Amino acid sequence: MYYIGIDLGGTKVAVGIVNEEGMIVHKDSVPTKRERDYAEIIADIGELILKVVKGSGIDASKIASIGLGAPGTPNNKDGTLIYCSNLKYRNAPVRADLQRYLNLPVYIENDANCAALAECVAGAAKGTQHSITITLGTGVGGGVIINGRIYSGFNNAAAELGHMVIVSDGEFCGCGRRGCWEAYASATALIRQTQFAAKKYPDSLVNNLVNGDMTRIDAKTAFDAAKQGDEIGLKVVRDYIKYLAEGLTDVINAFQPEVVVIGGGVCKEGEYLLGPLREIIARDVYCKDVPQTQIKVAQMGNDAGIVGAAMLGRNL
Amino acid sequence: MYYIGIDLGGTKVAVGIVNEEGMIVHKDSVPTKRERDYAEIIADIGELILKVVKGSGIDASKIASIGLGAPGTPNNKDGTLIYCSNLKYRNAPVRADLQRYLNLPVYIENDANCAALAECVAGAAKGTQHSITITLGTGVGGGVIINGRIYSGFNNAAAELGHMVIVSDGEFCGCGRRGCWEAYASATALIRQTQFAAKKYPDSLVNNLVNGDMTRIDAKTAFDAAKQGDEIGLKVVRDYIKYLAEGLTDVINAFQPEVVVIGGGVCKEGEYLLGPLREIIARDVYCKDVPQTQIKVAQMGNDAGIVGAAMLGRNL
Repeated sequence: MYYIGIDLGGTKVAVGIVNEEGMIVHKDSVPTKRERDYAEIIADIGELILKVVKGSGIDASKIASIGLGAPGTPNNKDGTLIYCSNLKYRNAPVRADLQRYLNLPVYIENDANCAALAECVAGAAKGTQHSITITLGTGVGGGVIINGRIYSGFNNAAAELGHMVIVSDGEFCGCGRRGCWEAYASATALIRQTQFAAKKYPDSLVNNLVNGDMTRIDAKTAFDAAKQGDEIGLKVVRDYIKYLAEGLTDVINAFQPEVVVIGGGVCKEGEYLLGPLREIIARDVYCKDVPQTQIKVAQMGNDAGIVGAAMLGRNL
Repeated sequence: MYYIGIDLGGTKVAVGIVNEEGMIVHKDSVPTKRERDYAEIIADIGELILKVVKGSGIDASKIASIGLGAPGTPNNKDGTLIYCSNLKYRNAPVRADLQRYLNLPVYIENDANCAALAECVAGAAKGTQHSITITLGTGVGGGVIINGRIYSGFNNAAAELGHMVIVSDGEFCGCGRRGCWEAYASATALIRQTQFAAKKYPDSLVNNLVNGDMTRIDAKTAFDAAKQGDEIGLKVVRDYIKYLAEGLTDVINAFQPEVVVIGGGVCKEGEYLLGPLREIIARDVYCKDVPQTQIKVAQMGNDAGIVGAAMLGRNL
């Protein structure tokens, strides 16, 4: 059988048809234009589904289900999106609306959970039963897989791993608390930390790399400076890795997954990031006399959303 | 059927026979004397099992299994206790040794996980599928129940919820890290915080209540002072509840259990503790537009260890 996956992003909506192995056989996308009414957006998604099915050449009878991943909280009982940061609408009746285009079971899930399922089915956690995927982006997204399935608690709202406090009374977080892991380990946080250092040390390479233009600092800047031996760059990177490792160790102590998958642009730093990260975790983890969690880089890239959403139907 | 449960504590070993409903029908105990060799301790436990079976009047054919709970890490594949803080021995072959006394399936589990299972089967989390039990004692113990079963990760070492950092670079923790929740929210931590305040403010009621004798300060002292309106007592209690709530909110954001059960002597403070705790959690939890986790006080008391260990066989 085949499964339709929808990745409802802030910039674009991507729809794909995915096979049993978690491979996309055909996909397409349209801009989200999320400032529009929900009715217009869901109509675009419905049309895109029909276009992708047609384009794939796969007979509709061979498609088992539709899955939708979005940043927000789903209610799979009544098939609504309780909240979605890419829609102005609350309690959006996504299932009923999509079934008017293609009458199949519709599953809805948080996008970070979809990414975790994608890594479990076809990515860095393939072959494991317990894995956690952490995505370092604007925030710190978390998805937990237990026994090969998404774990989302009794109310579909679990795995908000970025919103565990690691610095009591620390930096303000978008969620209203202070000191959340997300406020220290997201790409956004790394950029803020780099900007702070660049302002404080105007002679540093960090500053030179962007010609003193703070708006040009991105999640790579500190790493670039560090690799050239710049002390300030090294310090920013060292502190960032420390916070990242602190939260990852907490997650491991709580969940002990076989694999923790880390995604997001920062992971392009490869072993320069992962080497010291693994060292701190190995030192700090609570149980050292048992098999240890592996730390791996995400493999699914931009396809994670489509594949994970599609696999909701295969796993349920 | 009936199930034998063993609670291997630091002071005493308690053995009980438990029915399907999680009620103890007969129990007995012996001192652990944990400084002795493992062989002597396990022989005592074996003899105690036979004594309890005989004393219960239940036919051995009606007993399904033996479960043992201990502070440490089990290996249920080969039936050993990899590590146990109440035994000097590592990789103790508990299953094989107990089966020489009574040839039944033997399950081994961390004692905090047993407490969580007991609360799920017969205590404050009865009737729920997802619950977490936090025990505030010498440390902060955690046990996670998912789909009515203990969740212990891929290596039996999960749910070390007390060892999640809430204060980066904070107080030293026995695990080697700094700033663990346990170092702020355990009864031990509360006593330390109260002692610190009593030394700093010798005129406070906290100090008067123990006649200036720091060794007499216990987990009740600050609460007693606070209830009489003492400012220092109030501050200690307020700070303690803040840290306790911080970690509980983290646990809820990560797991979203239906119920969080809190155990340990501090819970005797009842609503004086739980009222403000619930208020902070309600304010700080990430997802507010979904059904919310309930915070309850543990009901199983000292029987939690026996009942949880016994129920390992019923649930597996």
